[in-house]
Amino acid sequence: MPELRISLNDLSNNDFNNIFGSLPTFFDQMKAEKGAGFGPYFISGVAGSFYGRLFPRQSLHFVHSSSSLHWLSQVPPGLETEASTAMNKGKIYISKSSPQSVLDSYLLQFQKDFSLFLKSRSEELVPGGGIVLSFMGRRSRDPTAEESCYQWELLAQALMSMVLEGLIPEEKVDAFNAPYYAPCAEELQLEIQKEGSFIMDRLEAFEIDWDGGEEVWINTVDQTLSSGQRVAKTIRAVVESMLESHFGRDIMDELFQRYARIVDDHLSATLEPST
Amino acid sequence: MPELRISLNDLSNNDFNNIFGSLPTFFDQMKAEKGAGFGPYFISGVAGSFYGRLFPRQSLHFVHSSSSLHWLSQVPPGLETEASTAMNKGKIYISKSSPQSVLDSYLLQFQKDFSLFLKSRSEELVPGGGIVLSFMGRRSRDPTAEESCYQWELLAQALMSMVLEGLIPEEKVDAFNAPYYAPCAEELQLEIQKEGSFIMDRLEAFEIDWDGGEEVWINTVDQTLSSGQRVAKTIRAVVESMLESHFGRDIMDELFQRYARIVDDHLSATLEPST
Repeated sequence: MPELRISLNDLSNNDFNNIFGSLPTFFDQMKAEKGAGFGPYFISGVAGSFYGRLFPRQSLHFVHSSSSLHWLSQVPPGLETEASTAMNKGKIYISKSSPQSVLDSYLLQFQKDFSLFLKSRSEELVPGGGIVLSFMGRRSRDPTAEESCYQWELLAQALMSMVLEGLIPEEKVDAFNAPYYAPCAEELQLEIQKEGSFIMDRLEAFEIDWDGGEEVWINTVDQTLSSGQRVAKTIRAVVESMLESHFGRDIMDELFQRYARIVDDHLSATLEPST
Repeated sequence: MPELRISLNDLSNNDFNNIFGSLPTFFDQMKAEKGAGFGPYFISGVAGSFYGRLFPRQSLHFVHSSSSLHWLSQVPPGLETEASTAMNKGKIYISKSSPQSVLDSYLLQFQKDFSLFLKSRSEELVPGGGIVLSFMGRRSRDPTAEESCYQWELLAQALMSMVLEGLIPEEKVDAFNAPYYAPCAEELQLEIQKEGSFIMDRLEAFEIDWDGGEEVWINTVDQTLSSGQRVAKTIRAVVESMLESHFGRDIMDELFQRYARIVDDHLSATLEPST
């Protein structure tokens, strides 16, 4: 029976203790379910950014990145400083109101990051090794298309409503831009081709619920939450640490309560039959 | 330049987050010191007991275990239950007053554990791979020799002084036995030979200070501490979690204060010229 080494990677400030602590129970469950057909698997944790080398040369047979590659290695240069405040006023990601320079900065950062990811993995994989990536993308070629922006758009609305009430200084919102990019198929294909190490076998787009899917909530006390509240909880789990370091911890509860209401309004408006 | 993968192993309830969090600074320091000659090293964390398989077959070139193999995988069978209280009264490890059955139980557990360690590593190492082990041992063949017991002997004294004052029930001390064994050279050689996977190139005995060595303390505020206090701090860091789960958190401060005084008395008695 082949013995598999499985390496789990995340940034070094994430909670590996929790993962390691849960492994014994996980293994017991798997053994109970799969019996003799399970394992042996050897799990290790690797801390560090996947935008760079993480493993020795030709030491991996297969790589899977799940729901992470839409995070850029940094806020695009020029958008991370106070001087950038005039460029993307009242917004925190690409928006209909963003000037072309903002779109260009985001695309450039995505291109740099994604090709560095591909290059790093190509060095680590054995010849013939495979890779499966899943992350947020957009169907439209237009990076300002609603589908790729509206989570950030609605979060910006929540922030700006707090600016109006004097709870956050406006410059704080102007100076914040998310280190995120949801590429379209053409942008992906171009980078994969340019980098040259990989051939794309298959590209598939699928929709996911904002709240992580009904089944996540179905057996929890949270099934009494509104859709907006569930979305807010899900998004908060992902972006809070980033927002907290910029806006401060104090406003987080208020911010995500407002965000939940805005999402509820948005969803009910979307669901109403057009007249 | 060869690329090295370094795997750090500890039990899964240890703090890997702290290790991973310290790696960026460590790498920066090493690069500053060693320049281009440093690395590339790829570090991973592996959680689990080394008394069993941790890595895929023939995936390691070199193994080093530092200051861990004196910890047994469990308290020797028969010594871990309330029923054992009569066997090792007032003691928490092998002692002059321990019956032969206690010595036998400890030796048997050591033999099982150490040979499982060797077998597991032999499967993981490539043919010709090497292994360096450092851990607590004793020079004497006699497992009740003072050199191998007196840390536990003095800790038992501290516990029993609290029993006398009614701070700990006596049965609690009787029922506690440390999952620890300090083997002698002959015991090691015998197990290595019996297990059969390894040839011993070299065995070296060296003394270490109880307090981890003068240089550990020299640049800290703790240089005002007595020897006993330094020893107590060092030993506490290692054994507290184990004692706490048996005796309760409340008595820990008092216990290690008493231990520090007992160690100070012991050391000054040892250092006094014999008359």
